Amino acid sequence: MQVRELASRIKKGDRIALAKGITLAENDPEGAARLLAPMGPPGKAFVVGVTGPPGTGKSSLVDRLIEAYRTDGLKVGVIAVDPSSPITGGALLGDRIRMSGHAEDVNVFIRSMASRGWSGGLSRATSQVIRLMDAAGYDLILLETVGIGQSDIEVVGVSHAVLVVLMPGLGDDIQVSKAGLMEIGDIYIVNKSDLEGADMMVVSLLSLFRGSPRSPPVLKVSALLGEGIDKLHDDIERIRSTFTAGSTDLRLKSIRGMIVETARGAAMERLAVVSESKADRLAKQVLSGKTTVEGAAAKLSA
Amino acid sequence: MQVRELASRIKKGDRIALAKGITLAENDPEGAARLLAPMGPPGKAFVVGVTGPPGTGKSSLVDRLIEAYRTDGLKVGVIAVDPSSPITGGALLGDRIRMSGHAEDVNVFIRSMASRGWSGGLSRATSQVIRLMDAAGYDLILLETVGIGQSDIEVVGVSHAVLVVLMPGLGDDIQVSKAGLMEIGDIYIVNKSDLEGADMMVVSLLSLFRGSPRSPPVLKVSALLGEGIDKLHDDIERIRSTFTAGSTDLRLKSIRGMIVETARGAAMERLAVVSESKADRLAKQVLSGKTTVEGAAAKLSA
Repeated sequence: MQVRELASRIKKGDRIALAKGITLAENDPEGAARLLAPMGPPGKAFVVGVTGPPGTGKSSLVDRLIEAYRTDGLKVGVIAVDPSSPITGGALLGDRIRMSGHAEDVNVFIRSMASRGWSGGLSRATSQVIRLMDAAGYDLILLETVGIGQSDIEVVGVSHAVLVVLMPGLGDDIQVSKAGLMEIGDIYIVNKSDLEGADMMVVSLLSLFRGSPRSPPVLKVSALLGEGIDKLHDDIERIRSTFTAGSTDLRLKSIRGMIVETARGAAMERLAVVSESKADRLAKQVLSGKTTVEGAAAKLSA
Repeated sequence: MQVRELASRIKKGDRIALAKGITLAENDPEGAARLLAPMGPPGKAFVVGVTGPPGTGKSSLVDRLIEAYRTDGLKVGVIAVDPSSPITGGALLGDRIRMSGHAEDVNVFIRSMASRGWSGGLSRATSQVIRLMDAAGYDLILLETVGIGQSDIEVVGVSHAVLVVLMPGLGDDIQVSKAGLMEIGDIYIVNKSDLEGADMMVVSLLSLFRGSPRSPPVLKVSALLGEGIDKLHDDIERIRSTFTAGSTDLRLKSIRGMIVETARGAAMERLAVVSESKADRLAKQVLSGKTTVEGAAAKLSA
């Protein structure tokens, strides 16, 4: 299929064409860039980043948000970013099973994307997939990432709103703040609220923000039992309403994030294509004292 | 102090000089490169990466390993890499308190390093700090990182052995594999073994590796109670013995990691110095349809 034909089908909402476009973004970012070029600027879809440590129930929460927004009549796209696992074959099955309730809904499009070690390539592809879903008419995009630190920074960059998902027993407030999660959330969620310690965790999160310039909502939610989802939905809608009212601030923030991530990804990929043998040869030169680590790094990038 | 004088003091084991060198690595990587250049290739210190999700007790475990290796008579350096938290003022206090038992031991040097958003700069500095400690005569370097995903890849790159620290109740085995932790560990530790579910977690970790080409040890440890530390020490020593016997494989792996991380860091820093206003201007051009995200990214890097 020609790129122009594929672009036209994606814009008409053809799911198979969208899937092809996403595969292109994963495997051939330059090809995906050509596909996206005629589609115009992004900015119709509202992007919600969902992040937090593994095991906190992000996928179940995403599932509940799909339900809530489908009830509102919105078309919902989901991008689940998972580090790849050669041993377990990707380990994405868990999510797929949990989200299978929406598998037959034509207004829900779920895609898992596997990291291939270099986060640069992933964030570059993610930014393209968001734009493809945007072009395909999805109103809301849920971007779920496992991870702490760098991968969250990327989520923050491209999202219009960021949900940080935590759970009781994850560690004390020092642990939460150490994970670099305190700065990035627009809404904080203590999931698995049926577990002991949920109220305590809400209290300690609130106390972390006391005296700070911002005070994001901290919500107790049980994605499993469906409790607290209405309040969460309301809080997301509060942010989304400024977006739907035409705020260019939020749109510019997301586009800026996409630009930076794309530039970052391109830089990382340039390094990743450097041959193993070149890196090996340089390491031997460092070990024998012929050059320094910094000297070798400069040669690696050259 | 002249760079040559500082280098000479560091090599003599002067702690204040080492602290100055580390500060240089954090703030002026080119200056630190000049400091390191005359020190020759790294390769005396054995580097142990300690990683895993937040709240699993990595710092307490590091504390126990300091004890164990001090008993062996080794000089021990610790690098604790923490995402910075402007709200909590770094949130590093927790670690420092826990490690204070070694604060007065002149053969233990502990340094916390804060990430500043761009993991590139951090990994570049970390590689330099390892070499500074190596030059200062530390036999063993414990590199503790909070994080999952990209930051772990960096730990793997520069370490000679990687410990993955988990705990019961963190999530099922799918969660562990999703976090990308299954590929990177040389030794897996189920810490907080006094908690319910520790045995189950060991079993499910072992089953994850069944049928895979590798079968790293999975150990039950209680850093708090000091249980399982002897066995862990033995398992680390098994890897370290090939290193002390002169293995260039492990040395080359670590140096290769340092080269790649330094090149990566330099690339990220080049992007980070791009002015906010330039990114803003480009985002506006994308929003108005004057250019694409990819076109703007190319201009950002140019």
